Amino acid sequence: MSSNWEQLAADKRQRLTKTIPEQWRIEELPSDDSVIDYPRTEDILSNHELEITELSATQLVSKLASSRLSAVEVTLAFCKRAAIAQQLTNCVHEFFPEGALAQAKELDEYYARHGRPVGPLHGLPVSLKDQLRVKGYETSMGYVSFLGMYDKEDSVLTLLLRRAGAVLYVKTSVPQTLLVCETVNNIIGTTTNPRNRNWSCGGSSGGEGALLAMRGSVLGVGTDIGGSIRVPAAFNSLYGLRPSHGRLPYSKMANSMEGQETVHSVVGPIGHSIEDLRLFTMAVLEQEPWKFDSKVMPMPWRQSEANTVTAKIRSRGVTVGVYNFDGNVLPHPPVLRGIEMAINALRKNGHNVVPWTPYKHDHGCDIMNRIWAADASADVLKDINASGEPVIPNIQPLINPDAKSIGINELWEIQTQKWTYQNEYIETWREAEEQLGTELDAIIAPVAPTAVVRHGRFMYYGYSFLINLLDFTSVVIPVTFADADIDAKNETYVPASELDKAVQEEYDPEAYHGAPVAVQVIGRRLSEEKTLAVAEELARSLARNKSGSQTFSSRL
Amino acid sequence: MSSNWEQLAADKRQRLTKTIPEQWRIEELPSDDSVIDYPRTEDILSNHELEITELSATQLVSKLASSRLSAVEVTLAFCKRAAIAQQLTNCVHEFFPEGALAQAKELDEYYARHGRPVGPLHGLPVSLKDQLRVKGYETSMGYVSFLGMYDKEDSVLTLLLRRAGAVLYVKTSVPQTLLVCETVNNIIGTTTNPRNRNWSCGGSSGGEGALLAMRGSVLGVGTDIGGSIRVPAAFNSLYGLRPSHGRLPYSKMANSMEGQETVHSVVGPIGHSIEDLRLFTMAVLEQEPWKFDSKVMPMPWRQSEANTVTAKIRSRGVTVGVYNFDGNVLPHPPVLRGIEMAINALRKNGHNVVPWTPYKHDHGCDIMNRIWAADASADVLKDINASGEPVIPNIQPLINPDAKSIGINELWEIQTQKWTYQNEYIETWREAEEQLGTELDAIIAPVAPTAVVRHGRFMYYGYSFLINLLDFTSVVIPVTFADADIDAKNETYVPASELDKAVQEEYDPEAYHGAPVAVQVIGRRLSEEKTLAVAEELARSLARNKSGSQTFSSRL
Repeated sequence: MSSNWEQLAADKRQRLTKTIPEQWRIEELPSDDSVIDYPRTEDILSNHELEITELSATQLVSKLASSRLSAVEVTLAFCKRAAIAQQLTNCVHEFFPEGALAQAKELDEYYARHGRPVGPLHGLPVSLKDQLRVKGYETSMGYVSFLGMYDKEDSVLTLLLRRAGAVLYVKTSVPQTLLVCETVNNIIGTTTNPRNRNWSCGGSSGGEGALLAMRGSVLGVGTDIGGSIRVPAAFNSLYGLRPSHGRLPYSKMANSMEGQETVHSVVGPIGHSIEDLRLFTMAVLEQEPWKFDSKVMPMPWRQSEANTVTAKIRSRGVTVGVYNFDGNVLPHPPVLRGIEMAINALRKNGHNVVPWTPYKHDHGCDIMNRIWAADASADVLKDINASGEPVIPNIQPLINPDAKSIGINELWEIQTQKWTYQNEYIETWREAEEQLGTELDAIIAPVAPTAVVRHGRFMYYGYSFLINLLDFTSVVIPVTFADADIDAKNETYVPASELDKAVQEEYDPEAYHGAPVAVQVIGRRLSEEKTLAVAEELARSLARNKSGSQTFSSRL
Repeated sequence: MSSNWEQLAADKRQRLTKTIPEQWRIEELPSDDSVIDYPRTEDILSNHELEITELSATQLVSKLASSRLSAVEVTLAFCKRAAIAQQLTNCVHEFFPEGALAQAKELDEYYARHGRPVGPLHGLPVSLKDQLRVKGYETSMGYVSFLGMYDKEDSVLTLLLRRAGAVLYVKTSVPQTLLVCETVNNIIGTTTNPRNRNWSCGGSSGGEGALLAMRGSVLGVGTDIGGSIRVPAAFNSLYGLRPSHGRLPYSKMANSMEGQETVHSVVGPIGHSIEDLRLFTMAVLEQEPWKFDSKVMPMPWRQSEANTVTAKIRSRGVTVGVYNFDGNVLPHPPVLRGIEMAINALRKNGHNVVPWTPYKHDHGCDIMNRIWAADASADVLKDINASGEPVIPNIQPLINPDAKSIGINELWEIQTQKWTYQNEYIETWREAEEQLGTELDAIIAPVAPTAVVRHGRFMYYGYSFLINLLDFTSVVIPVTFADADIDAKNETYVPASELDKAVQEEYDPEAYHGAPVAVQVIGRRLSEEKTLAVAEELARSLARNKSGSQTFSSRL
């Protein structure tokens, strides 16, 4: 059995290598820690292609819709850059430039014939996490046992992206099981962070994180049940939207623990700006996904919700709560500084920032852990064991060989506790508003306790997965970078627990120098329009502050 | 143990009887089958009070908001009429006229002080199914073991109704467990249908059905996980809205199988017109229930959705699908005739009616049955056995002593099947629209295979509970009444199964003469505004046809 899984994985790696045409291959692979600037130094992409890949998605669709760029030339540029990203960071599960170029050609022909774009994403290459099915390709999702099965139909989101005019060209790497925030599996190994390959790219949408950071993609699709969109966004200095459940279509995607509905995994975009996340969301909603996926709400894009934020920016400012410590695990110094920078930027720009007291986050984390453990890993072990492959080290701690599946009535009890906790949380939000005498527009918080992690060191999911339990909308935005000269280790902190201690001990100013620092902007459930608008204002405020303040050391 | 539960139940009955003041007691209880006209023949209500109780909720709030009626006089009228209804049909679990009159007095004082109503339901008495908690009263829900526990706080919906100005005065009867479509429990016994006390009032919101039919309430709150709003509405010639899950707040209500989230129970109004159902829904949404209950979507009343229907009525008509047989159990002749009347009325009024082929309803029913059986009744048996009371006969067939609870992974498998089925169903809907070249605005179908049932004869839930599985919005409207002279027994029908045969055999034209016949108007998920508008147009079309056609025999 074991030789079989190894053969299957080796065969897949070989097939994957062959998808990269000779002329896109890097002859001598660099040994540098950082490879993020590599595409600019090689001659695989022309200058024109480099320029294309450094435009925003919003700029690209505008140029594509007015035929200033063709779908074929844009697709070719991103395919080349994705090929480079793959060779340097190992971020791809499926790569199909030929299919993509054929699709792009059809789009160009459509444009030539009709004189207009096919949809709002006409000709835009969009990368997909390897959970989305694309007809004719595999969806291994990091399980060896899933290899060799070729999808007979698209996932609903794949289909709707095609209808909107997106070009599909790549499916990106994920960790075995999807249930951890790093990206490693027994098929392709480990995906690395292009800013420093000693760091993880995050996970589970980690391939997206690395590919987007390399600008081998301008807009990508991730999923998030515990942080899997937000952590890779944060670890790669990207923007990510974790919508609330039921906003975007998940139907016909592959998954672990399929049918688990206590906390839903959600699908959402990762990109280089809020504007691009909005472009994606609007384009998908325009396709009326609720007519294709029963879990999607019939809720078109609500511009009026975004406009309430715009109006506040013009008048008395938006009001946000903020916390930098959930009471369980203290974030590393760069993350704490990132929160401070967000507060300062907002205040300087006329907004109101108030402290938010995390409401029973330990209890919430406990509920979430019991949901994960409900079937004693039976579902994921079935798919792992089907090929004989070993369990990856990252999820070993999550798998307790003595655990037993809980019963139905225990699950219902957990679901009741979850609902009660959610209701108490929103009651706390409502009470805060009553005290403030105004709406609390969002809450700003860390995404993870660390700004990136070295491989195998991701330890605490509480900052991200609590938001999944609450099903709040969350938008990740980059704030700054760790700086060894500023972010000194806190030597006097007394950890609250063994876990807290372990996380603190992991901080090493030198090892994490230059690590991206992000925050998440959290809105109430199904508040995508509004939360994107608040996050955009935070991004604007940070940008305005940057020139004036000296938060960066010369080393960055 | 057994003497104890009987004592507790007897004590509760005695306490309940005492809530009715002497002057509202009926000295000599009538023995007639039909008691529906009784309140008009007694002198407990004055003519003015009779008039008040025969106004619509919309008329009442208008008069209350302009102080042409006081909250106290309206409340008093409904309390009296509810007291009569209770004595004749046994439809009440909690009755608190004193509390209600005190609340009404406060509302009148508020009005006198501020010169305006407190909210959109100012002074309107609203009846509540005995699942909603009202601070200070019991919520037995038909379980003896729940007696003696007095609620410390309101359910969210109770609270929001109060904020909207509604007066709370009564909680209505339900069957033990809530899981059957008749209303019988070991505390108060059986609730009867006021049109013929040999008939069931339906269930599980059966007390609401009987009380509203008696006009002891003008607007009531029911819940529905398998037909529990729609069946009592249908059996009592009332209008009922089963909203989709997440539209109206269920938080802090009592329930059986609490925490079961595979198919959600939903809460919604039962009343005397579509206009009144709309009044209720708009009034609750105005209170922003999503800020109080995490399961409620942030979706205010969308008048634009209703307006699309109005526009179609004015132009080329609405398009509805229709089925009268789900392939499992053929409805009784009066129900089939009701469907025909709906078709004819719509066509005569310029609308488009097309046949709808039920999509795998047998498979859907099978999924639903497996969801019910998931915990082998452990949850309901726990609450039944806690007092030692026996299981009511109606649910005996649902309880299999040899059944075993399924495992977590089996539940996830069922949940996956449910989602797949839902998606296939909406795909069928979408394909129908593509073929029609227009939107399919709703589907019209039977609510149950029978127009009412004699006590203990409700056998088939498929027509109602499939809609719960799909989470479609459904509005019940009355169409006509069974007529022994028209609705002859079909003697040549060959039943498809033993169940089908048993249901057919139950039909007896004489025994069911005069039984209310209703249809449900089914819309896509979360289409409350639109589906209410289509149902309203059907009601209008039926009313227009009534004078012209001779569908009723002289006996009605």
